[in-house]
Amino acid sequence: METIETEKELFIKMVIAEWDKQNNNFNKILSSLNDDQISKEIAPGKNTGTYLVGHLIAISDAMLPLLGFGEKLFPQLDSVFVKNPDKSGLKIPSVSELKEQLKSVHAKLTEHIRSVSPAEWFSRHMAVSEEDFEREPHRNKLNVIINRANHMSYHLGQLVLLQDNSRK
Amino acid sequence: METIETEKELFIKMVIAEWDKQNNNFNKILSSLNDDQISKEIAPGKNTGTYLVGHLIAISDAMLPLLGFGEKLFPQLDSVFVKNPDKSGLKIPSVSELKEQLKSVHAKLTEHIRSVSPAEWFSRHMAVSEEDFEREPHRNKLNVIINRANHMSYHLGQLVLLQDNSRK
Repeated sequence: METIETEKELFIKMVIAEWDKQNNNFNKILSSLNDDQISKEIAPGKNTGTYLVGHLIAISDAMLPLLGFGEKLFPQLDSVFVKNPDKSGLKIPSVSELKEQLKSVHAKLTEHIRSVSPAEWFSRHMAVSEEDFEREPHRNKLNVIINRANHMSYHLGQLVLLQDNSRK
Repeated sequence: METIETEKELFIKMVIAEWDKQNNNFNKILSSLNDDQISKEIAPGKNTGTYLVGHLIAISDAMLPLLGFGEKLFPQLDSVFVKNPDKSGLKIPSVSELKEQLKSVHAKLTEHIRSVSPAEWFSRHMAVSEEDFEREPHRNKLNVIINRANHMSYHLGQLVLLQDNSRK
């Protein structure tokens, strides 16, 4: 049993390490940009950095209820950064407000992620019914982490374009 | 034993499903763009679509030796699309050549991925020594898939900017 438990812990560790890596990259990119750069469009006519930052925070915030960790911290972000596109006319928080919100969401999410047991990671996430989960056991909490890491990577590839000397 | 083996298989399935999803997205984005669009810069002064497509093919091709599946199919891509930046002056394959190469690399990679046993996925990849692997067992073949899916997501977030009406 010992070895088997270790293997399960190992792949949970692999998934969370990739998630942590993307979050570190997000913070690195954010701190490489000033507020003026963040407010610009990533390419002509495309989303602004502010929108993408708000979008990533809103998606991470939504992971709290999805993973059974509690309520969203900033439910108002959903309308501005998920349900509606950029330049919707809705009031957008300032970059410094967004950075504070990111810190809070990330702290709460990390605290919970660190305390989930191996068995819990393979239990269903909150957007799948018990019935569906029986047929589709891959729709578990750990799979949410795999998916959201990729979602973050996708938008980090865009945010990095706001750096002056980056072609990456 | 039955249940435990199933859990391991489930985890492998989750990781490969995300990889497949990114590859499908890559193909979808590619087929939504004409050659002229692909040859453009994703944003002023940044990489061209051609470079990013070549880069993604080269990285996938390099997974063949890394995962112990055999030699690279197109080792010449490494110099043009990995070791050197865009606009290096090196001869670049045409978009239609790149699309053919993508098809070959993806077919060979997929064929091998489908045949790896669960135990093999948790064995070391070819860029880590046996000694290091003993200390860092997360540096296994499956972890390469997790990492490369995120790498592909990152650049797909950029390629999609070449679509006329996309702000995503």
